[in-house]
Amino acid sequence: MKSILQRGFTTAEFEMRATKAQQKMRELEVDAILLTTEPNVRYFSGFHTQFWHSPTRPWFLILPAEGKPIAVIPEIGASGMAGTWVEDIHTWASPRPDDDGISIVASVLNSLPARFGRVGATLGIESHLRMPVANYLQLTTLVSKEFVDVSLAIHELRQVKSVAEIDKVREICRITNVGFDKIPGYAKAGMTEREICKQFGIDMLMEGADECPYIIAGSGQDGYDSIIMGPTDRVIEDGDVLIIDTGAVRDGYFSDFDRNWAFGHASEQTKAAYRATYEATTMGFEAARPGNTTSDIYNAMWKVLEANGALGNDVGRLGHGLGIELTERPSNTATDNTVLVPGMVMTLEPGMVYAPGKSMVHEENIVITETGAEWLSKRAEPELLIIK
Amino acid sequence: MKSILQRGFTTAEFEMRATKAQQKMRELEVDAILLTTEPNVRYFSGFHTQFWHSPTRPWFLILPAEGKPIAVIPEIGASGMAGTWVEDIHTWASPRPDDDGISIVASVLNSLPARFGRVGATLGIESHLRMPVANYLQLTTLVSKEFVDVSLAIHELRQVKSVAEIDKVREICRITNVGFDKIPGYAKAGMTEREICKQFGIDMLMEGADECPYIIAGSGQDGYDSIIMGPTDRVIEDGDVLIIDTGAVRDGYFSDFDRNWAFGHASEQTKAAYRATYEATTMGFEAARPGNTTSDIYNAMWKVLEANGALGNDVGRLGHGLGIELTERPSNTATDNTVLVPGMVMTLEPGMVYAPGKSMVHEENIVITETGAEWLSKRAEPELLIIK
Repeated sequence: MKSILQRGFTTAEFEMRATKAQQKMRELEVDAILLTTEPNVRYFSGFHTQFWHSPTRPWFLILPAEGKPIAVIPEIGASGMAGTWVEDIHTWASPRPDDDGISIVASVLNSLPARFGRVGATLGIESHLRMPVANYLQLTTLVSKEFVDVSLAIHELRQVKSVAEIDKVREICRITNVGFDKIPGYAKAGMTEREICKQFGIDMLMEGADECPYIIAGSGQDGYDSIIMGPTDRVIEDGDVLIIDTGAVRDGYFSDFDRNWAFGHASEQTKAAYRATYEATTMGFEAARPGNTTSDIYNAMWKVLEANGALGNDVGRLGHGLGIELTERPSNTATDNTVLVPGMVMTLEPGMVYAPGKSMVHEENIVITETGAEWLSKRAEPELLIIK
Repeated sequence: MKSILQRGFTTAEFEMRATKAQQKMRELEVDAILLTTEPNVRYFSGFHTQFWHSPTRPWFLILPAEGKPIAVIPEIGASGMAGTWVEDIHTWASPRPDDDGISIVASVLNSLPARFGRVGATLGIESHLRMPVANYLQLTTLVSKEFVDVSLAIHELRQVKSVAEIDKVREICRITNVGFDKIPGYAKAGMTEREICKQFGIDMLMEGADECPYIIAGSGQDGYDSIIMGPTDRVIEDGDVLIIDTGAVRDGYFSDFDRNWAFGHASEQTKAAYRATYEATTMGFEAARPGNTTSDIYNAMWKVLEANGALGNDVGRLGHGLGIELTERPSNTATDNTVLVPGMVMTLEPGMVYAPGKSMVHEENIVITETGAEWLSKRAEPELLIIK
């Protein structure tokens, strides 16, 4: 039996991903798919590097109708890509402004069999191309095939996780819980948001996280008004409520959940908002089963929030997919209606504005199973924890 | 006098950035510039959040011909954007797949005075749009102005740093040096690359870094072959050479430099390669002065490397701009020819393949001054440090 701590994936996993994508490609009538972003290139190749933080050079992976992906990448990545299951690797000395890989990509795409005469690219929903638009438009003239959007298909392939992928999310959720559990042991009024978040990040690194790229904090007297800014140098005071939300990463897979604490005391209204979001999480979990939809999850949660006086929700959804990226499709909204299937890793994220300028947001991570759902994060306490 | 530790920037700094951009816009004959990526939105607005790790929602900032930027952003970011100098903030409940901000962006662009009838966007060199290409193409039909590429102009505005920006790079370079200086105190044969990098990252966090998103390692017997992968669980052995390269961040500004160590012993050839790259750094620094070009820096460094038996260089350049991003324009290449001006923050990054499968890469950070250049990183030792 494999250790949950195993790095990377087996070649069989990549073969399965390519095979599923190639089956979808036949349905969509495309001869190849062009990929340009870190998550998509990594998903199909296993190429895993922090070097994507350098925005200078474009990277390309082409999935043909049959066989392994083909890499068209800057020379600086050649030895790294050679360590993956990809065998056909084309390189150039990038940066080369007058032709940064475009002629090679065109040549590879033109060399592939033209059964349908169409190339898929991530042009649409919740996607972007990590390359100059001008170069993309040039590419469409150099390639003797029509470019069509396949972004939804790529999202759908990625959103159903394998057992090996779920294990990676499970492990980073365990690490994240360890980090959160330590916070009441050191956080106290007088510390800044930034100080608490720094210790939290270091604790997760010590516990096994590779990086903690997302650690935000919001705080304020008896409530906070933002869940995507900070941490700041704001000093926590008696009577404050603090939220910390995190996306920590191990082996390229994210956790994404938050926790709330009050310092000294909290109002009944704030305690009630906490209970309501906790209860909404319970209802969302019960609705999270194969055959139901993301909108069923949303409705189950929103019903509780509304009954408890929600003035609104400025997050735009009550949870989302999770995995290679901090947030993936689908979204728990009233209109998303994505059918849940086993292997989907999701967040349940009920949140509401319960008073002007005051929000309460809970978040947990789950995976859809054959019969329902399983918690990947250890649930938050049912009552707002007050740090004395 | 302001503390170097001050967070953010004054309103005067943002006014200066907007004014310079608006002057450039008149030269380029564009009525507005549309910005979509984190660095560009932050540069002109001051909106600073880790939430960009969530790829779901698009964010837009529009710089008009006069006055402050206009934000068109998801509702979740409204309170955060309200904390910046931006006043005109349009929001919608994103994600909203059928119209994720596009109609509002079109409406704002159409409402602006049409002196030239052109809108600038980052469509070209070393740029991408962080939005679906399909939505961009739709936008060009909804807006009664022509879209033109202004990516080079945006790079050129950003690549000359203010004193306040240079101070931020200076501080993160100091922090990074502290981290590197501790490594010989704990790194030893028997540790893995990952263990060493983790301690290095924690030391930088403790010293004041906000995050360390880029920490890579390469190691091997008497040399390494990649500088963009890892760290891995490879155990460092007697006779190994280890490189660690990092991009650490404080208040949104990067350091980017590396260090090399041998364990136990190293060959004369490897020590000589180290000396050559050290000497190349010296020559690059001497060539780094106003009026000279990035190609002068390149030529000064490559001459030393070539004279010392360089078999090649698979990085594609010998350094680059640095600031809000780990790597920015320009590049030190034979053909880049960007004229150096005071305020440009650069890396000197001489590297060479000195034997098959063995590279040696040095990197330091500098800023161009009125009379030459100033080191922002504390230089590496002139001889390869051997950890016994």
